[in-house]
Amino acid sequence: MRTIHVAVAGLGFVGRETVRLLRANRERFRGRLGADVELAAVADRDVHREARRLGLPVSVLRVRDPRRLASLPGIDIVVEVLGGLDAPRALALSSLKTGRHLVTANKRLLSHCWDELRRAAARGSARLYFEASVAGGIPVLQALDNGFAANRIEAVYGILNGTTNYILSSLEHAGPGATMQSALAQAQAAGFAEKDPTMDLSGEDSVQKVSVLASLLTGRALPPGRIARQGITGIERQDIDFALGTLSRTPRLLGVLRLDWGKTVRLEAHVFPTLVPLEHPLAAVRRQYNAVMVKASHADDLMFYGKGAGPGPTASAVVGDVFMLCRDILGAAPSKPRPPVKVELIPVSESVSPYYLRLFAQDKPGVLAKIAAALGRRGISIASIHQSDVPAKDGVPIVLTTHPAKLGAFKAALREILGLGSVARRHTMLRMLP
Amino acid sequence: MRTIHVAVAGLGFVGRETVRLLRANRERFRGRLGADVELAAVADRDVHREARRLGLPVSVLRVRDPRRLASLPGIDIVVEVLGGLDAPRALALSSLKTGRHLVTANKRLLSHCWDELRRAAARGSARLYFEASVAGGIPVLQALDNGFAANRIEAVYGILNGTTNYILSSLEHAGPGATMQSALAQAQAAGFAEKDPTMDLSGEDSVQKVSVLASLLTGRALPPGRIARQGITGIERQDIDFALGTLSRTPRLLGVLRLDWGKTVRLEAHVFPTLVPLEHPLAAVRRQYNAVMVKASHADDLMFYGKGAGPGPTASAVVGDVFMLCRDILGAAPSKPRPPVKVELIPVSESVSPYYLRLFAQDKPGVLAKIAAALGRRGISIASIHQSDVPAKDGVPIVLTTHPAKLGAFKAALREILGLGSVARRHTMLRMLP
Repeated sequence: MRTIHVAVAGLGFVGRETVRLLRANRERFRGRLGADVELAAVADRDVHREARRLGLPVSVLRVRDPRRLASLPGIDIVVEVLGGLDAPRALALSSLKTGRHLVTANKRLLSHCWDELRRAAARGSARLYFEASVAGGIPVLQALDNGFAANRIEAVYGILNGTTNYILSSLEHAGPGATMQSALAQAQAAGFAEKDPTMDLSGEDSVQKVSVLASLLTGRALPPGRIARQGITGIERQDIDFALGTLSRTPRLLGVLRLDWGKTVRLEAHVFPTLVPLEHPLAAVRRQYNAVMVKASHADDLMFYGKGAGPGPTASAVVGDVFMLCRDILGAAPSKPRPPVKVELIPVSESVSPYYLRLFAQDKPGVLAKIAAALGRRGISIASIHQSDVPAKDGVPIVLTTHPAKLGAFKAALREILGLGSVARRHTMLRMLP
Repeated sequence: MRTIHVAVAGLGFVGRETVRLLRANRERFRGRLGADVELAAVADRDVHREARRLGLPVSVLRVRDPRRLASLPGIDIVVEVLGGLDAPRALALSSLKTGRHLVTANKRLLSHCWDELRRAAARGSARLYFEASVAGGIPVLQALDNGFAANRIEAVYGILNGTTNYILSSLEHAGPGATMQSALAQAQAAGFAEKDPTMDLSGEDSVQKVSVLASLLTGRALPPGRIARQGITGIERQDIDFALGTLSRTPRLLGVLRLDWGKTVRLEAHVFPTLVPLEHPLAAVRRQYNAVMVKASHADDLMFYGKGAGPGPTASAVVGDVFMLCRDILGAAPSKPRPPVKVELIPVSESVSPYYLRLFAQDKPGVLAKIAAALGRRGISIASIHQSDVPAKDGVPIVLTTHPAKLGAFKAALREILGLGSVARRHTMLRMLP
């Protein structure tokens, strides 16, 4: 019986759970694959301590420097769950170049080094699997790759970050004293936000995932720097209350990828806080859960919902990838990644959405007319306008929603509006799902 | 370059869409598989007319009798989308026995003939794929088979029937005159219910899907007759209004499969209308959509949401299966189906749930006490009780909800309650998600 040798780089929470799952599934994988899937080596700074804690047999090689895994003879699959960028990059490139297949959960590595990884894989005739990098334990990349093989994927969008979703959804039914700041503190206490939550709150984490999805579907790099983003820090409690009470909507941080399949694929890619109708399935996604909507040419609208992070879900996706790679290895002619297509990134200013805008204006005649004129001049029509009679510090709050408009036109109108002497600089701007 | 030959039996809506998708994807599949996937033969009662309408080249063989496809030389994959039971069964068995891989969307065939199909596949060393048979275009079977390869699947449950979901969800926000009957008529007019909707309304369609899921996960037949079911015809508009207004819940017809993995797998399998909390993701599943919840040992709670029927979604799943089979065929050692495990079906009377019960009682002292006593004697405690002061035809409506209890005990109490002279026979009983 053939044996497939696997090496795991990184024995943190995810790495340890990966090792446990690989070992717990030996019998089942042997039954289903007709081959042994064997843990052959592990790498970690504290490799001896961690290997002892895991009760690994002496036959499992232990190394301190993960890069050594790529030069060990006989390794078929390298699993990279190190964290960081430089060490994963070095390990991934040398593994792929020398013909070792690679499984990684590292969205930062994938989004920043896609072209390098692709070239290295081509050189070594090796494959790269990365299910865990987007939406954790949800097998959405396998679905996009295999289940929807017969479809054109027209859009992939959704809640790709658990931290921001935990914060936003916790404010939906919170007491009157709760603020974005208190919700963040609560998320940190519950273990769903990092001490430094910048990557999550700024939308950068979601941007990396949109980048990975774009690369999977087009075969081309789309570096994070080319993806427009807005985080959730500008949202105030009042926006959430108003959206719920008056618009029957709730804010979610959405990563969006739309693909228009012509000879060149026109791509729309961005991350924005977005007001979602309460009856939309994404509004039912609460706490740390992730959800990915897929619009496919034939399977139509789908949603994949589950836990986007945590050692269990991440290791589940990593070992699922190992299983698929074993199928490939044991087969003579595994399926190839999609050949790269020509891609044109649509400028985010061309992206169309209805908008939500909360402003503070001096309560005097003509202000509303000027605001409406600034929008109207750019062909943007107002869907609803709500003026409170309770003046706040910066003036009377005005909330308006628009019909779908291009972001560029809306931003130009917004600049004009904020330049009116009678309107405060302070404002909240959100997209809305149509 | 190797060519894989595919035959399609049945050129109805799904069959025609399957043929179109196979032909439209030739280039892409060649790129990803390094092989040609060619439509070699079609079968239909009106095969010449349908082939002409599809514009098939003369090289595609046309036959009237689908069973002939199994004896054509050189066919690698037979796609069965005939409908019915006898002709599909004959075609499936002879295809598998003679080493043709089979793709089917036919839940009735799978649920009624699992053991026969399995034996035929073993005899011919052929594989059987059936993604489209459960939840249409949602690739949930592939996910269970591959993406969750490293997990124990502890439960699969959800909305497996679009017709009943269309009816139930349309009543959530319907005008005061709407009834189950008017909602059914509307579903029929919109094309989401058959002229004879018995299979759907009775829960039998969902039962067949639970049976297929059980067989996929255990390798064993679980014939539909062994799966307890209750349809939606007993639900009245008042139950929905009360559930929404007072319990913050909404009814959904849920197919449920729970698996307790010991040496023998203890299975719980049934289909019941169930009150789902409004904040649960299943409550956000409306109209004809399906949704499958998965509880996996490591990936944890997931939901797959999408269209469960229709030619586009069904053909998408069918051709996704063809793509996976091509990967298997081109590989030397494809993954095997799960080896059958020992299975013990838990009697549905042992199944535990909280319950909703609406009764009509005469408005006289002591009735509530007798009802409570009937429950209490069986260890069932009441969670809430609501008595209306507006008497209806059969008496005063009483709605009560219980804490979790075994179905057998609850039904015994119900029999006693309905035998009280002061309680009408008419009642509604629903499960509730905890």
